[in-house]
Amino acid sequence: MKKWIITNGTFITMDEQNPVLQGCMAVENNQITYIGANPPHPLDYYDERIDGSKKLYMPGLVNTHNHAAMSLLRGYGDDLALQVWLQEKMWPMEGKFTAHDVRWGSLLSIIEMLKGGTTTFVDMYDHMNEVAQAVEESGMRACLTRGVIGLCPPEVQTAKLIEAKQFALDWHGKAGGRITTMMSPHAPYTCPPDYIEKIVQAAHDLQLPIHTHMSETAREVQDNVDQYGARPVAHLAKLGVFSRPALVAHAVHLTDEEIDILKQYDVRVSHNPGSNLKLASGVARVPELLRKGIMVSLGTDGPASNNNLDMFEEMRLAALIHKGVSGDPVAVPADAALRMGTIDGAKSIWLEDVGALQAGMKADFIALNIDQPHFFPKTNFISHAIYSASAKDVVDVWVDGKMLVKNGECLTLDEEKVLYEAQSCFERLVGQA
Amino acid sequence: MKKWIITNGTFITMDEQNPVLQGCMAVENNQITYIGANPPHPLDYYDERIDGSKKLYMPGLVNTHNHAAMSLLRGYGDDLALQVWLQEKMWPMEGKFTAHDVRWGSLLSIIEMLKGGTTTFVDMYDHMNEVAQAVEESGMRACLTRGVIGLCPPEVQTAKLIEAKQFALDWHGKAGGRITTMMSPHAPYTCPPDYIEKIVQAAHDLQLPIHTHMSETAREVQDNVDQYGARPVAHLAKLGVFSRPALVAHAVHLTDEEIDILKQYDVRVSHNPGSNLKLASGVARVPELLRKGIMVSLGTDGPASNNNLDMFEEMRLAALIHKGVSGDPVAVPADAALRMGTIDGAKSIWLEDVGALQAGMKADFIALNIDQPHFFPKTNFISHAIYSASAKDVVDVWVDGKMLVKNGECLTLDEEKVLYEAQSCFERLVGQA
Repeated sequence: MKKWIITNGTFITMDEQNPVLQGCMAVENNQITYIGANPPHPLDYYDERIDGSKKLYMPGLVNTHNHAAMSLLRGYGDDLALQVWLQEKMWPMEGKFTAHDVRWGSLLSIIEMLKGGTTTFVDMYDHMNEVAQAVEESGMRACLTRGVIGLCPPEVQTAKLIEAKQFALDWHGKAGGRITTMMSPHAPYTCPPDYIEKIVQAAHDLQLPIHTHMSETAREVQDNVDQYGARPVAHLAKLGVFSRPALVAHAVHLTDEEIDILKQYDVRVSHNPGSNLKLASGVARVPELLRKGIMVSLGTDGPASNNNLDMFEEMRLAALIHKGVSGDPVAVPADAALRMGTIDGAKSIWLEDVGALQAGMKADFIALNIDQPHFFPKTNFISHAIYSASAKDVVDVWVDGKMLVKNGECLTLDEEKVLYEAQSCFERLVGQA
Repeated sequence: MKKWIITNGTFITMDEQNPVLQGCMAVENNQITYIGANPPHPLDYYDERIDGSKKLYMPGLVNTHNHAAMSLLRGYGDDLALQVWLQEKMWPMEGKFTAHDVRWGSLLSIIEMLKGGTTTFVDMYDHMNEVAQAVEESGMRACLTRGVIGLCPPEVQTAKLIEAKQFALDWHGKAGGRITTMMSPHAPYTCPPDYIEKIVQAAHDLQLPIHTHMSETAREVQDNVDQYGARPVAHLAKLGVFSRPALVAHAVHLTDEEIDILKQYDVRVSHNPGSNLKLASGVARVPELLRKGIMVSLGTDGPASNNNLDMFEEMRLAALIHKGVSGDPVAVPADAALRMGTIDGAKSIWLEDVGALQAGMKADFIALNIDQPHFFPKTNFISHAIYSASAKDVVDVWVDGKMLVKNGECLTLDEEKVLYEAQSCFERLVGQA
């Protein structure tokens, strides 16, 4: 049983009584066993001691909505109307994706996320065995789901659902417990109601949560009303989606009544500010969601609509845009954005022992190099983490007590090979090679 | 006369016919002499050859609104109502600032800007000799102005104006031409009309442009109407401010008529998206300004309301927020945001030979390390620069043909000393030392 300790560090704890602490943190195997001003044991009790001076330690970031393999399409289509972007750029290329492409695209995203301080992510895509395999190799934590689109003949729908169930069964609790799974109708506008009901039944059978896109654009909400006579929240509630623990991505266009329904069912919302701005979807009503006590977390969405996986940027966007758009300078303060990016992200995927630096929590945490101009003066490190930091300030990353990034280098994956293979996949997809 | 060449590079040129070029760029002394696919001379013609592979070269970024010394207050007050922030946090501390504080606060910002790829900045503050001195030492380019607040007795007003004129005279064209100067009434709400007229007269006498804050908040616009019977644009036009070349910061709250007046006088607008969001000032009408052909550039504003000086972030915010708020996914495309951060920034401070990689332009440029996951695949480097890059991707920086940052290290300033002194200044100011 390996015991080690960080001394002389600055820690963002997520403990409201003591949010920033100078001192030390001890880890045994995959768990934080102590955090406080002074070491609980003589230093020679520990197998290893790390000098934490000039580092800011904080919980690893949790990205609650991603399609990691879409990194292969980063920069392939920008500044386009949504339908043009989807129909002329994304869908034709994604239609050509093989398992091989999903493997290398996912690994490209995983390296970017890990080096940038994200320790857990949610992924909804196809060829999910490849994603799970990549997660296992990387050492990262993930909540994975095969997103199914039901705009196809019944026998294809059935095959997809069987595949999604099999994936969820095969990987739930695997990779030393680092992988959990969910069931996912892709969206109310891509799945007929009876198909959504079948997926809900499968989630009940497997005792798994449900993840879906919801109310990303005003158009989609209107289409739902036109087609089904209800806005998406009522529609999904009626189909039983919220009878399971549920995480919805986007939720940009909500009425007060819909917010009440989400609260009633304890539905968790993955706010994707960067993607919502870039695709001109709008600005989610996050201050109202937080006021209602709804669990809100942050997602990057896929790297083709962001176009990076920097969760510090998502936390900063969450803290900035709601102030600017509402006119309220205290909307989404720094500590709220920090919670959304860490502990509330973990809770949003039902991980209760991830997302804080406290004894008993899993040892998923990161270190930032704060010996840099934009972290001076040393006024308020939560402010600095939200309003000044970026993914590139992260130097060390641990997941489940294991060091995965050291001094900016990923220890578990071969970055040079991943970059080479991802580039090759893209070139083959566009027919250049 | 030193001649050198970069080969095998990827260059963002700002030439609309050939925006991204693979090839080489030659520099002699402080000027770009050639850019193209193949070297114009045999390589042994050059005194030095740099291998540019795995680097993205682009013009240095131009930050057209800053109060650099306010870096000393980074993180000292966030998530506060504007008046509380100003009256309880900023003004009491700034009132204590000495020349010594302005020196170290400015150097802290200059190091952050330079290492992050900003090669030119506009600064409006007090103790401006210290700022100019810091700019000269750093090797950076700057357009500097002593911002005067006229809410004081006439003799103090007069003394401030004399000081501002003297500063503008002393430093215009200095530091090998890298420093230019302007005259600055701080804002219409901090300068009585007759005082603004005196500053305009001084600008005429010295043949210098004028820089001022304008229409940052809705409240300030309403106060202007209440006090002077006109909105700020008409008010400043009437006082002659636009009879000089003029750069206004913020311009968030504008009517169509005001936009027409700005266009008529060729007034340049420094858009400060990060600061405007953080202080809940609102979202400027940038798409309309661009449609009218008004020259729009980007500023960070002071580091206490941002809270970093990452111009890549300002370019990205400019490209993102106007899409999200307007609902138009093609508003402010990547190349428009890029122009705002580079060549249009330079033009906004009347530098016609800065901001592009073209023969005859000043050699102010930067290199990004693109051998990183978030720059893969190699699809569109303008998209990558705007939607994926950050200040921390910058590795090398040249201003006026001189290398100021090499591999992330500032060659002209002692970073360790600057961090130490800035921290000491802050601790003395809050009475901790």
